[in-house]
Amino acid sequence: MASFNIDSIVQSLADIRSAWRTAQGRSREPGSREFPSRQALSDVMDALKGALFPMRLGPTDLRHDSENHYVGHTIDTALHTLLGQARLEIRYQNRHAPLDDNELEARAVKAVSNLANKLPHIRSMLDSDVLAAYQGDPAAQSVDEVLLCYPGVQAMIYHRIAHELYTSKLPLLARIAAEMAHAETGIDIHPGAQIGRSFFIDHGTGVVIGETTVIGERVRIYQAVTLGAKSFPTDEDGSLQKGLPRHPVVEDDVVIYAGATILGRVTLGKGCVIGGNVWLTQDVPAGCVVTQARSQDTPRSKCPDSII
Amino acid sequence: MASFNIDSIVQSLADIRSAWRTAQGRSREPGSREFPSRQALSDVMDALKGALFPMRLGPTDLRHDSENHYVGHTIDTALHTLLGQARLEIRYQNRHAPLDDNELEARAVKAVSNLANKLPHIRSMLDSDVLAAYQGDPAAQSVDEVLLCYPGVQAMIYHRIAHELYTSKLPLLARIAAEMAHAETGIDIHPGAQIGRSFFIDHGTGVVIGETTVIGERVRIYQAVTLGAKSFPTDEDGSLQKGLPRHPVVEDDVVIYAGATILGRVTLGKGCVIGGNVWLTQDVPAGCVVTQARSQDTPRSKCPDSII
Amino acid sequence: MASFNIDSIVQSLADIRSAWRTAQGRSREPGSREFPSRQALSDVMDALKGALFPMRLGPTDLRHDSENHYVGHTIDTALHTLLGQARLEIRYQNRHAPLDDNELEARAVKAVSNLANKLPHIRSMLDSDVLAAYQGDPAAQSVDEVLLCYPGVQAMIYHRIAHELYTSKLPLLARIAAEMAHAETGIDIHPGAQIGRSFFIDHGTGVVIGETTVIGERVRIYQAVTLGAKSFPTDEDGSLQKGLPRHPVVEDDVVIYAGATILGRVTLGKGCVIGGNVWLTQDVPAGCVVTQARSQDTPRSKCPDSII
Amino acid sequence: MASFNIDSIVQSLADIRSAWRTAQGRSREPGSREFPSRQALSDVMDALKGALFPMRLGPTDLRHDSENHYVGHTIDTALHTLLGQARLEIRYQNRHAPLDDNELEARAVKAVSNLANKLPHIRSMLDSDVLAAYQGDPAAQSVDEVLLCYPGVQAMIYHRIAHELYTSKLPLLARIAAEMAHAETGIDIHPGAQIGRSFFIDHGTGVVIGETTVIGERVRIYQAVTLGAKSFPTDEDGSLQKGLPRHPVVEDDVVIYAGATILGRVTLGKGCVIGGNVWLTQDVPAGCVVTQARSQDTPRSKCPDSII
Amino acid sequence: MASFNIDSIVQSLADIRSAWRTAQGRSREPGSREFPSRQALSDVMDALKGALFPMRLGPTDLRHDSENHYVGHTIDTALHTLLGQARLEIRYQNRHAPLDDNELEARAVKAVSNLANKLPHIRSMLDSDVLAAYQGDPAAQSVDEVLLCYPGVQAMIYHRIAHELYTSKLPLLARIAAEMAHAETGIDIHPGAQIGRSFFIDHGTGVVIGETTVIGERVRIYQAVTLGAKSFPTDEDGSLQKGLPRHPVVEDDVVIYAGATILGRVTLGKGCVIGGNVWLTQDVPAGCVVTQARSQDTPRSKCPDSII
Amino acid sequence: MASFNIDSIVQSLADIRSAWRTAQGRSREPGSREFPSRQALSDVMDALKGALFPMRLGPTDLRHDSENHYVGHTIDTALHTLLGQARLEIRYQNRHAPLDDNELEARAVKAVSNLANKLPHIRSMLDSDVLAAYQGDPAAQSVDEVLLCYPGVQAMIYHRIAHELYTSKLPLLARIAAEMAHAETGIDIHPGAQIGRSFFIDHGTGVVIGETTVIGERVRIYQAVTLGAKSFPTDEDGSLQKGLPRHPVVEDDVVIYAGATILGRVTLGKGCVIGGNVWLTQDVPAGCVVTQARSQDTPRSKCPDSII
Repeated sequence: MASFNIDSIVQSLADIRSAWRTAQGRSREPGSREFPSRQALSDVMDALKGALFPMRLGPTDLRHDSENHYVGHTIDTALHTLLGQARLEIRYQNRHAPLDDNELEARAVKAVSNLANKLPHIRSMLDSDVLAAYQGDPAAQSVDEVLLCYPGVQAMIYHRIAHELYTSKLPLLARIAAEMAHAETGIDIHPGAQIGRSFFIDHGTGVVIGETTVIGERVRIYQAVTLGAKSFPTDEDGSLQKGLPRHPVVEDDVVIYAGATILGRVTLGKGCVIGGNVWLTQDVPAGCVVTQARSQDTPRSKCPDSII
Repeated sequence: MASFNIDSIVQSLADIRSAWRTAQGRSREPGSREFPSRQALSDVMDALKGALFPMRLGPTDLRHDSENHYVGHTIDTALHTLLGQARLEIRYQNRHAPLDDNELEARAVKAVSNLANKLPHIRSMLDSDVLAAYQGDPAAQSVDEVLLCYPGVQAMIYHRIAHELYTSKLPLLARIAAEMAHAETGIDIHPGAQIGRSFFIDHGTGVVIGETTVIGERVRIYQAVTLGAKSFPTDEDGSLQKGLPRHPVVEDDVVIYAGATILGRVTLGKGCVIGGNVWLTQDVPAGCVVTQARSQDTPRSKCPDSII
Repeated sequence: MASFNIDSIVQSLADIRSAWRTAQGRSREPGSREFPSRQALSDVMDALKGALFPMRLGPTDLRHDSENHYVGHTIDTALHTLLGQARLEIRYQNRHAPLDDNELEARAVKAVSNLANKLPHIRSMLDSDVLAAYQGDPAAQSVDEVLLCYPGVQAMIYHRIAHELYTSKLPLLARIAAEMAHAETGIDIHPGAQIGRSFFIDHGTGVVIGETTVIGERVRIYQAVTLGAKSFPTDEDGSLQKGLPRHPVVEDDVVIYAGATILGRVTLGKGCVIGGNVWLTQDVPAGCVVTQARSQDTPRSKCPDSII
Repeated sequence: MASFNIDSIVQSLADIRSAWRTAQGRSREPGSREFPSRQALSDVMDALKGALFPMRLGPTDLRHDSENHYVGHTIDTALHTLLGQARLEIRYQNRHAPLDDNELEARAVKAVSNLANKLPHIRSMLDSDVLAAYQGDPAAQSVDEVLLCYPGVQAMIYHRIAHELYTSKLPLLARIAAEMAHAETGIDIHPGAQIGRSFFIDHGTGVVIGETTVIGERVRIYQAVTLGAKSFPTDEDGSLQKGLPRHPVVEDDVVIYAGATILGRVTLGKGCVIGGNVWLTQDVPAGCVVTQARSQDTPRSKCPDSII
Repeated sequence: MASFNIDSIVQSLADIRSAWRTAQGRSREPGSREFPSRQALSDVMDALKGALFPMRLGPTDLRHDSENHYVGHTIDTALHTLLGQARLEIRYQNRHAPLDDNELEARAVKAVSNLANKLPHIRSMLDSDVLAAYQGDPAAQSVDEVLLCYPGVQAMIYHRIAHELYTSKLPLLARIAAEMAHAETGIDIHPGAQIGRSFFIDHGTGVVIGETTVIGERVRIYQAVTLGAKSFPTDEDGSLQKGLPRHPVVEDDVVIYAGATILGRVTLGKGCVIGGNVWLTQDVPAGCVVTQARSQDTPRSKCPDSII
Repeated sequence: MASFNIDSIVQSLADIRSAWRTAQGRSREPGSREFPSRQALSDVMDALKGALFPMRLGPTDLRHDSENHYVGHTIDTALHTLLGQARLEIRYQNRHAPLDDNELEARAVKAVSNLANKLPHIRSMLDSDVLAAYQGDPAAQSVDEVLLCYPGVQAMIYHRIAHELYTSKLPLLARIAAEMAHAETGIDIHPGAQIGRSFFIDHGTGVVIGETTVIGERVRIYQAVTLGAKSFPTDEDGSLQKGLPRHPVVEDDVVIYAGATILGRVTLGKGCVIGGNVWLTQDVPAGCVVTQARSQDTPRSKCPDSII
């Protein structure tokens, strides 16, 4: 019967963990895990999805008569689970200067209350996204199909919740939620991104939308579009400056086709159209159509020459 | 102990649901969910995958002796679960002009029978896909590895079933199945796409194949290839026209390298090769090699100048 | 009650399986499945992830006091499960010339021991990857966030284990592990790829890294980057030659931006920077910055003209 | 590899099933199972237990604020699941003279409504049982301990629901529920038994209470007590007569100690006490104390000599 | 944060295990568990129950059309799982004088084949038990209710399988199966007991039937009946003699009422009736009615005086 | 579609809960459940069973090499889960006069530490019980069979742990654990009972052992034995006096056969034997054999006449 050198491996791993913790300035880990749990947040997200769309994403045996009962119970449970996670994140945020318990609790309650009160707004925004997808895709046959099947809509359900977590100063929980959407759909939206009503992402795989992106209403984008940063300014000491606006502003009614890459704090003006695979690091005036220079059959109309 | 304003949130959500339902022309939801279930279809797909490849995708303790017993029982159960989902979809399709029960049942049975009878054909097509992958990838070590590991093959198992659901007039179930493959592999094939034998998608993430695409035999494509639509014709009143042929026709033995984008009802002739990142909206004659103009080292041979 | 033509379908499927097995040169399948199980390997990977990062990826109720106990028990169990899978793979590899039992066992034990002894090294490499991500992304707020949320780090946890399986001559198990990462993150790294310390993949969806790729230290790549092969040499009889070096060599401190495609056995010299969407099939000298010719605003500096 | 004679065994089993079905007068089974499901009823019972005692037997994360929401949603779901089972039982009851669909539905709805409206009464009765146990057992430390731990109380939760199913003409579902209690507690109460308030069964294993038993208020019994039938009257043709009163009537405030056996339609008068292991087939006047003749130390007081 | 003295406790437990193993004559445990698994056998029993009664105890979505397919696949899988357990038991039986592999395999296959071939017989016997319960209980409303609800029938399903395991020289597996029934029903039948057709146990809690009991056809017993041994003969050296006939022989058509205790190798003659709570250690001639002397109202008729 | 009168039922149930809470003197429930959880304790018991007998009741894939690692990790996790439950019980115990947090924590830690330190003792006692069963039952074939199959041993594993919880002043948790054994085995041992080494319960169903029972070493009892209280002394105001010694004292080497009932604070002297079904409320001198007067064939030897 084979034996492996378990004790020696265990010891080596312990040494490496110890070195890492020392390097990270942790005198000692607390007794148990004091960090938000991906599984707990996943439960919260599932519950909120069900509460937002009870007859479509709630339990299969839900009936109309008890819709409100279901929503009430589900929200209450989910918010208190979230409250526990919020405490963990806030304690972690302040691990170098611990808050007193009352202050910690007050912040956690405030953050979760903030999300709670935004739930009706979130549902309303998502309704507009569903309609936008239905109206924007010739293959869509019903709003219900859109809600259940479209990865772009799935990603937006996560994002609109994650964004409220982010603005409620729970960036880590927001990020975990965003990565759930990323894993499920291939769509990577940073929870900091501000996105207006009636947003539609078609197909979606490979889409990246950065932290300080601002998107208006009725915008439509396709797979593999990047709204990214061009370069990262550093401080005098060479460390990255965080939080500066560094991603595009996309105004109302813009369409961006598959594979286009827009980098930096540029503005795509109202109603402009960005062609597939275009690489863009400049502002585009309202109403412009920008396409790849190489494209064989599309005139570059209505745009100043300097753009491409 | 924290309390959230649950009752008020519940009421606001109810108001928004009510507004949505009014806007969608639903006097009132039926008592319970009358919509296909993603979970139920997922069970069906898992069962069919096992029945198609019992010794590789069936239960781990399956033995050769009872292979047919397993296949028979599994198919029968899966088809009847699918029948239940088919009833839900057909009822939903006809929600504005309800069918009588006999008509509904007849249609559901016909649709599921259609899929049932196609199962041997589907297995045969998938065998050709597995062989194509094995022969087309220098890293592949056995057909079994290809079947178990290659996301392109996983996507085709879903697609070949989904396509039969689509042609059996169950487009919503077909779409749900397609999105399962999309979530799992990053490959987005509309169930309407017609794909011939021995099809191989390598790597696959980001591939998009549109509803009216037609693909011949022995075609090979790489990650991030789009076979899409160029524009969406609208009716006089501005609404999208649905179902028109709007995606490429790809003839036998074509190869399309990573990141190429082919848009519109163009035809890629037999045996032609489309280079990586090429953006193409015109027909390509048989045998042509099309590459990006910028590419440093590849001659654009055998093609009319007008293409790029 | 609907009936489907089960018996006939079962028979047709049996015929097709039989034809396939004959074509594959299998006189007869063994009585039961003798092939590694994806589920078993998934359990192994989850256990190893927990053992490598016990307080972050281990059980939520793990406590510091019993960290080593948990690691020891988990590794021992995981390695013996893996040993069972290794036996299956090695027997399968040698199915045309079966090994005797002692030889088979010796090879399996050697392969698993090899991985076991590399676990501390793997953890150490992953620590460097986590730090690289934290330092390279202005949005990252803590090393813990990076470890839990970043798909690039998730993919590397799988890869660094899978690569040891690959070098231990268990390529099929390695491949299955790699595809788990691919499904979860959209990042497709062949387990054969050699990757140095402090490697950071940002966003990641659509990244493809081929089997013979060699990557140095402190390399950073973005979403949709391909490190691929240009063409597949064939033998005189037209079959693919396997195992030849055919993917890029990327030296230390290189950065490759989103969507860039590097094909063939080219070398990207130390510290060079490859711009977004660049298509490249030539060597790049150390320190060069290569960008798309079309890009409006970036000078192609420090590079020989011949590159683009 | 071992092979068993599967096909022959399958055929033999099919023959025996066929013989059984013929003997049972079933020309042919319906296509699928048309019989209530133990699992479905188990789900209903768990849900009703939670709804009756939400903060003790409901979900562990239930909070006071959403108690009513939880109760409403849970009851609604449970009653509709029960409705489905009720349809199955009623159809089965009438399998020899099938009801039309409307009649079947009306009966099922009536039966389930009946139970629904009794739920508050059931909770009230159970509260009295809990108090009786708390007051009757010197080892009981709190009413909560009684509710959570005492098998006698568990059995009564099942019984008080099962009895309403029985009186609602769903005797099979009632019986299944009763057997769940029997399996869990060793207490076998036929759902037909009528039991008054404040009933306490201590220890409980081996208790048997027959179908036509009538029990008053504040009765207390111990383990292994049987309230059974003495003999079964038969019809002229020798078949058992069903439904006749054949079990004891136990009046208010009676105590029956462990192992006592009371058989037949006898009456135990108000306040009488039956000693352990007593075997009794006669009426006992109110206030009597009946003990085993052999007992060494207990006077047989206050009872007519004729009893023992 | 509390800490317990884990390492010291672990060491103490290791010492005690070591002492136990030394006392039990085990130089060293093998590397892994080499003992049958209760869970594995539980899976086998569930599978066999489903295969014996597919439309009642099989999967809820089973349909008539695929009954044989289900039975065939289920039996094959269950028998091979059982084969694995049989190997473990036989190896354990011979742990002091290990068998060679071929011999071990031959014995395991023979034992399992034996059970396999008895399955039709077992189903036939169980059909007779179900009918006996239906005909013997005035509360029974259908044979289906009896099969699904009656603990006596549940116990006999386990017993009739366990008895074949016992006669196939797998006494440990037989015992594990018997204890499953005991835990579920409170009925404790040793797998060695020989029981004829049409056996009915009513209520059942507390019934004990010993290893060498022999029961004829059409026997009926009630709760808390014991068919036990009177004393255990010992060898000269004081250790118990195993396997001697030491439990009652119960001939055809006997009825034994609740709580009766029959001890030793006595014979209850054809058709005799044993009253409740009777304590009996002598033979009873055919046709006798034996009741407790104390019983008030039942004549001790038709029996020799010497019995009680 | 049927509708039930949900809102009215919900309201009625809320009214009854409110009445109950008022009657129980609870101004208001706390926000969430503050009561030990049966499921949590069940997890603790399963973990402790595995840690006590790792190679028999631990995970099936446990290997010898990592036995101590498994034990250490499992105990640590289980004790901390138990600590959480202990806090809940202690807070509940003191709900009318709440402890400060430090005092509560100190008591919880002390109680759990107490159990932790007793674990080796518990294992040692259980080893003696296993041996006693093996030596006392002619049907037992190995100590492993006894450990895995015998309900009496299962019950003692629970009891020996529960008894330490009881003596550690966690009577509610102790009781919950005891009821788990009761439900599983039909053996009802109050956790307060003091039981010496080498205790063997055969068959076991229906055994009841009361709170203040004291049992010596090498005692053997059979199914349906009751060691109970004769009467409950009440205070002047009529309420039960709790905690008084009211159950039997059973000295070393006593045997009690099936169905015997021993009531009150009587003493069964060393080595005495109590026959089946005996009803006893007096002391029995050492060495006596007591049998039912009615028994046909057993002399009442060696006992004073006054006993029966």
